[in-house]
Formats: sequence, C-alpha cells, structure tokens
Amino acid sequence: MSTRRSAELTDPGELVERAVAGDVRSVGRLISLVEDGAAGLPRLLTLLAPHSGRAQVIGITGAPGVGKSTATSALVAEFRRRGHRVGVLAVDPSSPFSGGALLGDRIRMAEHATDPGVFVRSMASRGHLGGMSAAAPQALRVLDAAGYDPILIETVGVGQSEVAVVGLADTVVVLLAPGSGDSVQAVKAGILEIADVFVVNKADRPDAGQVSRQLRQLQAMAPAAAMGSAAASSAATAWTAPIVRTVATEQRGMAALVTAIAEHWAYLDESGQGARRRAARARHEIEAIAADTLRRRLAADPAVDQLADRVLAGELAPHDAAAELLTRLASPEAGLPESGEI
Amino acid sequence: MSTRRSAELTDPGELVERAVAGDVRSVGRLISLVEDGAAGLPRLLTLLAPHSGRAQVIGITGAPGVGKSTATSALVAEFRRRGHRVGVLAVDPSSPFSGGALLGDRIRMAEHATDPGVFVRSMASRGHLGGMSAAAPQALRVLDAAGYDPILIETVGVGQSEVAVVGLADTVVVLLAPGSGDSVQAVKAGILEIADVFVVNKADRPDAGQVSRQLRQLQAMAPAAAMGSAAASSAATAWTAPIVRTVATEQRGMAALVTAIAEHWAYLDESGQGARRRAARARHEIEAIAADTLRRRLAADPAVDQLADRVLAGELAPHDAAAELLTRLASPEAGLPESGEI
Repeated sequence: MSTRRSAELTDPGELVERAVAGDVRSVGRLISLVEDGAAGLPRLLTLLAPHSGRAQVIGITGAPGVGKSTATSALVAEFRRRGHRVGVLAVDPSSPFSGGALLGDRIRMAEHATDPGVFVRSMASRGHLGGMSAAAPQALRVLDAAGYDPILIETVGVGQSEVAVVGLADTVVVLLAPGSGDSVQAVKAGILEIADVFVVNKADRPDAGQVSRQLRQLQAMAPAAAMGSAAASSAATAWTAPIVRTVATEQRGMAALVTAIAEHWAYLDESGQGARRRAARARHEIEAIAADTLRRRLAADPAVDQLADRVLAGELAPHDAAAELLTRLASPEAGLPESGEI
Repeated sequence: MSTRRSAELTDPGELVERAVAGDVRSVGRLISLVEDGAAGLPRLLTLLAPHSGRAQVIGITGAPGVGKSTATSALVAEFRRRGHRVGVLAVDPSSPFSGGALLGDRIRMAEHATDPGVFVRSMASRGHLGGMSAAAPQALRVLDAAGYDPILIETVGVGQSEVAVVGLADTVVVLLAPGSGDSVQAVKAGILEIADVFVVNKADRPDAGQVSRQLRQLQAMAPAAAMGSAAASSAATAWTAPIVRTVATEQRGMAALVTAIAEHWAYLDESGQGARRRAARARHEIEAIAADTLRRRLAADPAVDQLADRVLAGELAPHDAAAELLTRLASPEAGLPESGEI
C-alpha cells in the first residue's frame, strides 16, 4: 500500500505546503502515510517540523460506555463556537473486524463532517503493541502543522498503550459516568494520576453525585501515594484536577470544561510543567520511532522463527535467543530490510 | 531492589530446584526476579527451560465489571475439584496508586489462599509499554516449571498490551455480562477474533439472553471478515467459539466452562493449531525480551534527552533523532549500561 501511495506522491514539498495551507485532502493523505509507516515519511516529517509545536493537545479518555465520543463531539462544538479550528484523533486499539463498530460509534462526530474547521480522523492500530505509540505523535505533528489548535486525542483509556498515547497530551481529561462501577474500575487502570481534569458525564443521573464524592475521596488519598515518587512535584506547584459535571448529549457543562482546560494551560505555563511535558513528548516520540523501527526489523527477520523453533525444542533459552537476535540487529552485515520501512 | 535480591540469591541452581519441586516461596521469588528484570534472570530461565513447556495456558479477559476475578476464582475451584494444581497470573496495567484497589479486587481469590495447590500472583506492569509483554511469558515459564497446570492469566481485556498478553494463551476465554453496553464495547476492542470460548457471566440477569444473541449475530458476521486475512484457517479446521452461560458468584456453569476449554484443547491437538500457537508464543517471548532490552538501553541513555531538546528546538526531525539513537545502539563503543539490566 505504501508503495502505491509513494508512487502517487510526486512532490513531498508540495504535499506539505498544501497541508500547511490547510488543504484537508493533503492532511488526510499525510496521516495515511504516517499510519502506513511509509518509506518517505522521515522526509515529510522533516518538512513539517518547522510548522509544528504550537497546538495544545487535549487527551480524552475513560472506560467504555462513559460517553467519550459524545463528549468529544460536544467539546469540539464548544471550541468551534469560540472560533478555534479543531483536530480530532480517535485512537482505538481496533482490529480489522472492529472497524465497523468503530465507524458506528463515530456517527455522532458526523455533525462536524461538513465543517471545514474540524478535522476528524479515526486511527486504527497497526495490529501490534507500540505501533500506535509511534504513529500518534506523528499524526499530531501533521495536524499541528496544518493549524488545528486544539487537537483532541480520544482513546479507550484502560490499557497501557492507551495510557501512553493519552499521556502525550498537554491536558488529560478523564471521563467517568455513574453506573456499572466504571468510576472505580477506571481508577484501577492507573488513570487517576494522569488526569488533569475529571469529567463526570451523564451528570443528570441520580447517582452522579456519588461518582464525584468517590473521586474527591480518591484525590484526598492520592497525594500521599504521589509523595513517595521521585517525580512528585512540590506542594507549591501541585495541580488538583477539577471535577466538571457534564451532560454531553445535551451539550451541558461544556463551557465549564473549556474553562477548566484553559486554567490547566495557564498552570502549565506558570509552573514550567508545560515545557517538561513537551520535552517528555519529544522524548517519547523519538523512543517510539526507534522502538517501532527495531520491532519491524525484528518482525521481518526470518531468524526469529528459527530461534523460536530452537527455544521450543529446548535447545536455546529465550534470553539467549533474544541476545542472538540483538547481535544480528547490531551488525551492519545483517542485511535487514530497510526499504518500505521507516 | 534487584541488587538486594541478587545478593540474597546464593545459588540459582538451588532456587530453581526448589521451585521445580513445588516450593511456593521459591516460585514467588522467581516471579519477583522476572518482574524486576533482575540481572541473573537469563541464567535462571535457562535453568528453568528444560522443566517447562507442558502446562496449558488459559487467558481470561473482558471489560471492567463483567466479573473476571470472580469467574477466575470459580474456575480455579472447578479445576481443583478435578485434582489440578492451578497457577493464576492476574495482570493489570496498574500503577503504584492503583495497587490498593487491585488488592481489594483480589479478595475473592482469598478462598484459595490457604490451598497449596493454587498459586496466585498479581503482576503489576513496570510502568512502560511492553514491559508486561516481556515479563508475562517468563512468569508463565516459572509456573509451568513448578508443575502448575493449567495456568490462568487474567487481564483487563481492552487495551493493545492486554490483548497481546492474553494472546499468549492456548485458550482465550472472553467474558461478557449483561448491562451497561459492555458486550458490544468489548467486541469493539478487537476481542471477538481472539476468543476461543465466550462466557456470558451474570447469566441469571434477565437481559443475559440478549448478550448471547448479539454474540451469535457477531459470530455469523465474523467469518467473512476473517476470510480476508491471510492467516485465516480453512473452513475444515475452523473453530467456532462456544458460548457458555455462568453465574460465577454461585459457581454455576463452571463444569460447562471446563468442558468447553477441554474441547478447545482437543481441537488444538487435532488441527495442529496447538503447535502453531506454541511457536507464536515462543516467537513473541523472544521478540518481547529483545524489544524490552533495547527499550531499557534507550531509556538509560542520556543522549535521548539531548536529542529531544534538539527536536523541540526544531534543529532535528524526530526520525533523524531516532536514527541517531539506533546508530548509537548498534555501535559497540556506545558504552550503554548493561549491568542490572537483563
């Protein structure tokens, strides 16, 4: 697929120029190239780099069923009302099969489909651990260069990789909703400590107050846990995530949510946390690209199957097999495939 | 921490010998060493290798709130009744903070706490993408060598990394439950195609029948999707995941679940799929150890921060930074830290 797309791509400079000028088709094309890990990608991203680094990135996450897509759509509407051009990346650890269900779920975003000031893209993972981790920051870079600001990343917020992706954001919004024990379960998945803003959605339900109370209790407990970590910031610069109540289906609470996000941005500037987050994001991006490149080389290397057979036969311990693989990788004469890969 | 533990470890051979003889403390110690990525790990796993490769591995997954821990505990009880020694790895993408909640959730497993025929271990991730992916197969190897069979791996089944971990199993059991739209949401996360057995838990609820019907509809749709994949097996060897209804809190349906799992094992043998799964598991284990080792080297390399600064300053494109990092890694004079790492 990447070969075909590369062939179509007569002039990378022109594609980037058009995307930076806001041409929607070119933006979509660039994100497809990112998803494919196309051969020409490094050059494209080099061309994009000078145009990026401005947009605020908002991560939106929460357990299934809390209303993430609806809330994302309502938040987009609120930012549009204020004159922003908004980019949306919907990241789902999806599979070829679940593609259909994903589309159905995105139907609420259809209200923005004809709005040239909104760019919505569902990104599927490339079917391996870490693939999305490498692609998401690059897709952000494309939207950033194209002038979308803010950019929303919506993920299913339960797994490690989703936490990693949403952790790329300047502001992480964690959604909860009353019912089915989602609130407590979501906290279990390690989400509490990455939240900058909590949203209790479906706040018109009678048990919504209980979710807010549980959250406040957990927040009261959290500092003690955080104190034990070397990365804990001093009390003077601490940020306590506000709890915003919304009814996303009726667009209620969205102004308060935008205010909470804006306050967090002010905090990021004043505390110096913003610069630290951007440095961490750049570091994550570099590591993810490197890890993804290596992983592809490993996956394409037929030696892995031979090593696996020897491990199964009990001839070789797994660590020795891994060490042998790394030696192959490090030696320049390994002849590992490069073309078609990043 | 690994230093202290290594110092305690006077004789790796003796530790392995005791674990193989079924000494519970030694088994626990070995899994701790796996979690820490201790320096002596390769040697330990080499010693364990000849004793492993026998146990059947059952993955148990499903969205939050479907009753995974309860069902796992009930399944353990059923296997115990049949005279099996059972190992349980509860894998959660947890964080230091969520440790407490995790323990609370494991309380149901307490009924097996005094049973020497059951080994239960909650594994926390080491806080990075892929860490659990490398540690889980090694922990399986420890339990396998210690004679636990079957071994159950319970994961929150929504994210990419969880799907990867549960994909290590011989038989993947996917739990669903009526209410809160969990059934459809779980399918979205790419879980349908990895399920070998479906469990509709909480089957005493009035809307349980609807979940089974939805599943059957999805299964009727699935083959068409699978046909498109190169990995699709021929119709002659196809396995359609049976749907078992359970009420785990009352231990109901567990005999039927064990029967469904046993039928799947027979299918694995007859179809040759079992050997293919074991080969894939060995390959996954090697790749995960290699990727994890590289990732640690990258993370420990101060050059990453310098590269990140240059990317932020617009002096360097992310792909060029990643390429520079890989060059460092491949050169023997890079002087990257090795001791204390795998």
